Amino acid sequence: MPKAIGRRIWAIAEGYIPPQSTGTTRELISHETICILNAGDKDAHVEVTVYFSDRSPVGPYKFTCGAERTLHVRVNDFKDPEPVPMGTDFSSVIASDVPIVVQHTRIDTRQPALALLGTIAFASD
Amino acid sequence: MPKAIGRRIWAIAEGYIPPQSTGTTRELISHETICILNAGDKDAHVEVTVYFSDRSPVGPYKFTCGAERTLHVRVNDFKDPEPVPMGTDFSSVIASDVPIVVQHTRIDTRQPALALLGTIAFASD
Amino acid sequence: MPKAIGRRIWAIAEGYIPPQSTGTTRELISHETICILNAGDKDAHVEVTVYFSDRSPVGPYKFTCGAERTLHVRVNDFKDPEPVPMGTDFSSVIASDVPIVVQHTRIDTRQPALALLGTIAFASD
Amino acid sequence: MPKAIGRRIWAIAEGYIPPQSTGTTRELISHETICILNAGDKDAHVEVTVYFSDRSPVGPYKFTCGAERTLHVRVNDFKDPEPVPMGTDFSSVIASDVPIVVQHTRIDTRQPALALLGTIAFASD
Repeated sequence: MPKAIGRRIWAIAEGYIPPQSTGTTRELISHETICILNAGDKDAHVEVTVYFSDRSPVGPYKFTCGAERTLHVRVNDFKDPEPVPMGTDFSSVIASDVPIVVQHTRIDTRQPALALLGTIAFASD
Repeated sequence: MPKAIGRRIWAIAEGYIPPQSTGTTRELISHETICILNAGDKDAHVEVTVYFSDRSPVGPYKFTCGAERTLHVRVNDFKDPEPVPMGTDFSSVIASDVPIVVQHTRIDTRQPALALLGTIAFASD
Repeated sequence: MPKAIGRRIWAIAEGYIPPQSTGTTRELISHETICILNAGDKDAHVEVTVYFSDRSPVGPYKFTCGAERTLHVRVNDFKDPEPVPMGTDFSSVIASDVPIVVQHTRIDTRQPALALLGTIAFASD
Repeated sequence: MPKAIGRRIWAIAEGYIPPQSTGTTRELISHETICILNAGDKDAHVEVTVYFSDRSPVGPYKFTCGAERTLHVRVNDFKDPEPVPMGTDFSSVIASDVPIVVQHTRIDTRQPALALLGTIAFASD
């Protein structure tokens, strides 16, 4: 089986947490997720920096994705150094000390049927 | 933290502003967005050229995305040199003087529940 | 402005025309689209080959995307050498004589609210 | 026509089978699909490894995608060595002995109108 796969720096230009939800469970509340795969045999220490349109970037938000594990982090749950406001445009950069793979997903339940958006993030050279 | 990330030339082959909306707020009117991340320490001067199926390209539409900022521009809001018509197939090329990351999103509320489409743009070599 | 952008060979591993629609207009009938951007100054002669799970590939379907034009072709409209059946898994390879950019979109109106799927295609080396 | 296209190692960081469905047909039950294109002239022997957040990876799940064929495999149907649980975050790595192209799709019918998510997978270097 392949071991470490991916890159150390990733970027997601799109970011927006819909400020309303018709869903009531945690799964069906509108949210934005950063999905990380660490297929290698060393833990990944991951730092996320969030960029805004009208103020300085905030972060790093720190996470550990274990060796041979996946970690799907919800931006809605970011707390330290500060929460990411809903209804606000943002972007994010994801930096890791070992190669990882990053994908971006949004679930939007503002109207009474959910919508999904997902894409591979940009892998920096 | 990483500094300038991305490329200077990007392309989005898909483009279409749905001509109807069931949403009534600005957020829920059908729209097409170009999301730009400038993680570097110099302002990005961005020029968007829009390509059509049956006439010459239009542009450049000019934007500035500040250093360490994100800019989500709605194609619906393009005005100068001319608006982009709704219900029309188009593509776009995004050129910047510094590296940026570009993602494409559409929100479509033609039917009574929104749909989302999103993808990373093509990063030119 | 940038001229020719992209690659000559692209692949879309996903393909499926939903066999039902709640929409009744051409725009809201479930369909699959291959979006092509030719930003260069020479016409692109494009050949699409369609791959199936249980029989030999079909094609080429031939299209011309003019210089500095976009072409959004609906797989539903493919006729020569034969139509692509609905409700069937397929993949496609897009070959051009000049560099182009290719994106894949599906609109699915099987249930009474449309869904969208879109992604950049794979740019071959 | 082009022959073998793609890469031998692919990764999909996102994975989640929605645990409910409003659809009742096989097509409209919430599911996650890995779409494979083998445009080359040799059969592709494909092994999928599934990564979780809290336990060791499971696999390989083995598939053959014939020469010049496509194979769309539903993660819901994975059985050997064990099923992939619904409502659980996962990631996957797809390894092939010949070049292939991989795309990821989810159809989510938890609410009474389907949603789609799709993206090209990450092609490892």
